Amino acid sequence: MSKHYQRPIDFKHGRVEMTHGAGGRASAQLIETLFAKYFHNDYLGQGDDGALVPSPSERIVIATDSHVVSPLFFPGGDIGALAVHGTVNDVAVCGATPLYLSAGFILEEGFPLSELEKIVASMARAAQQANVTIVTGDTKVVEKGKADGVFINTTGVGIVPKGIHLSGKFCKPGDAIILSGYIGEHGVAVMSKRQNLEFDTTVKSDSASLNSLTDALVRSIPTLRCMRDPTRGGLGTTLNELASQSGVGMRIFEEKIPISEAVESACEFLGLDPLYVANEGKLIAICGKEDAPRLLEIMKAHPLGSHAEIIGHCVEDENHFVEMKTAFGGSRMIDWLSGEQLPRIC
Amino acid sequence: MSKHYQRPIDFKHGRVEMTHGAGGRASAQLIETLFAKYFHNDYLGQGDDGALVPSPSERIVIATDSHVVSPLFFPGGDIGALAVHGTVNDVAVCGATPLYLSAGFILEEGFPLSELEKIVASMARAAQQANVTIVTGDTKVVEKGKADGVFINTTGVGIVPKGIHLSGKFCKPGDAIILSGYIGEHGVAVMSKRQNLEFDTTVKSDSASLNSLTDALVRSIPTLRCMRDPTRGGLGTTLNELASQSGVGMRIFEEKIPISEAVESACEFLGLDPLYVANEGKLIAICGKEDAPRLLEIMKAHPLGSHAEIIGHCVEDENHFVEMKTAFGGSRMIDWLSGEQLPRIC
Repeated sequence: MSKHYQRPIDFKHGRVEMTHGAGGRASAQLIETLFAKYFHNDYLGQGDDGALVPSPSERIVIATDSHVVSPLFFPGGDIGALAVHGTVNDVAVCGATPLYLSAGFILEEGFPLSELEKIVASMARAAQQANVTIVTGDTKVVEKGKADGVFINTTGVGIVPKGIHLSGKFCKPGDAIILSGYIGEHGVAVMSKRQNLEFDTTVKSDSASLNSLTDALVRSIPTLRCMRDPTRGGLGTTLNELASQSGVGMRIFEEKIPISEAVESACEFLGLDPLYVANEGKLIAICGKEDAPRLLEIMKAHPLGSHAEIIGHCVEDENHFVEMKTAFGGSRMIDWLSGEQLPRIC
Repeated sequence: MSKHYQRPIDFKHGRVEMTHGAGGRASAQLIETLFAKYFHNDYLGQGDDGALVPSPSERIVIATDSHVVSPLFFPGGDIGALAVHGTVNDVAVCGATPLYLSAGFILEEGFPLSELEKIVASMARAAQQANVTIVTGDTKVVEKGKADGVFINTTGVGIVPKGIHLSGKFCKPGDAIILSGYIGEHGVAVMSKRQNLEFDTTVKSDSASLNSLTDALVRSIPTLRCMRDPTRGGLGTTLNELASQSGVGMRIFEEKIPISEAVESACEFLGLDPLYVANEGKLIAICGKEDAPRLLEIMKAHPLGSHAEIIGHCVEDENHFVEMKTAFGGSRMIDWLSGEQLPRIC
């Protein structure tokens, strides 16, 4: 029989049904009239079980992230855009140019199709802005109560320019630690919409693709050691990861860490330490001391780095401690995040 | 502070906690003592946000699949092995040699760590058998009741040998349709363990990686048009997909379709049509008529193709109908799967 559909999907009033994930006609219809419509490109249009893409002439980076953020829509973003930004950034901080994304959806039966369409449209916009192509995908549906609306996995593939070698292992004592802007915005924005917690704030998520910024750094900073986006676990945990990977200590300066008043007061209200609150559009870059002014200049010239600061430097320390000089002249150890602080933030 | 963990994770009696997904010390500990232990390899060991792998000298294929099978353990397999087989096969049927997998876990709070360890160990075994490397991963945890134990996304990257061009679009009238063995085993095996449905059967899932078989065909069959693994939606839906993609009709012969007595009687008991029951280790290959005997011979010589049969051929048909000649000499239209038949089969 032909694939002609009996009736169009009602994206205004309809809901996700188990048949949308069964692999038959309803699945094909959802793919054709939703995913292919918004993600439209030649690779996706191949219609085979995987996407065939040209031979990359460089080393490739592969990164994956499943997104379970709750709620699905929050000030400054939604799970769709976040699923693009998160994986684009994981690829980009490895020094790579992100090219391709896969998208795997797990949908809960009964989820409104109107919301799914908003999410898919938002993903498509985010992918276009980041100049990446969603080349292949998958959709599964689970029974009502067996998931929480929508979970999205994205996996990204990018290429690393010749001669570029970055890793969290490459930090050396004396290296400068530069942060691209205000911390804690994503976490606070998401928390402000949690059902049991709603509070008034002007804070919006910083969710954004960092690849144009990372690209500029990769091209211009010869001593660039590594980049990292401080997401789950926040700035504090990410610095600890890098210190531990490289076998160095770190000294950072509280007064240099960019933080907005709105985030500061929200964190006080919520009893959160902003050092551990997630960011989704911030960059930590570590480079040789001699290149720090140039790196800072490039960041500040970029729309996503206008509040960048040199927040500290690496030191010799066999314990790999991250120590913060406080605004009052004291000193505080910055440990790894040890509790959960903010569940389901990305 | 250093990353030294206060106490080891209790994989025998412990359960997944929200902190395991928070990105802090507990996440790092789970990654180190579970995922890195079983998936151990140099790429994963890089410890950066993505895995850097060598430049592929050929075109690459990217395929993704989220796995939500229920129950998680079934005769002949489990969600871990299935998550490897499913994506390896999606890459392999594109004519590619699968090289790398990413693994994205969504875990439900309270899930027993002992079961998670079994699943991860099974994934590692399956990856080793298929000769693919799990190069990067991600773990999220959602609250109890917001997922169903474990969901696993895998995304695969493989390389396509020079000169190989396969697609579901390439079938021509006259082409032979070859199936590698018994249908319906995976679906029946999973259904036999559903809580509300348990019934006695000897059927085991056929879940397996097909890449050594597809590789043999790619190398030896000059007129190979396409390959496809008939998973969700079964043989019936997959043939319809290919017919529609290529703009041909298909004629298949019921008596040629390999099916075991055990699957046949289970399907009768369950009221299922085996043509629409999922397979996870079966291959459909379509090639020029002249190569069909050679293709069949190669399949039969492979452990995963010993019951292979030429089940039919492509015909000119502007409606792209799939028609089956029944064992009794009649004829039946094989439509796309239109209902759900078997929810959460993969």
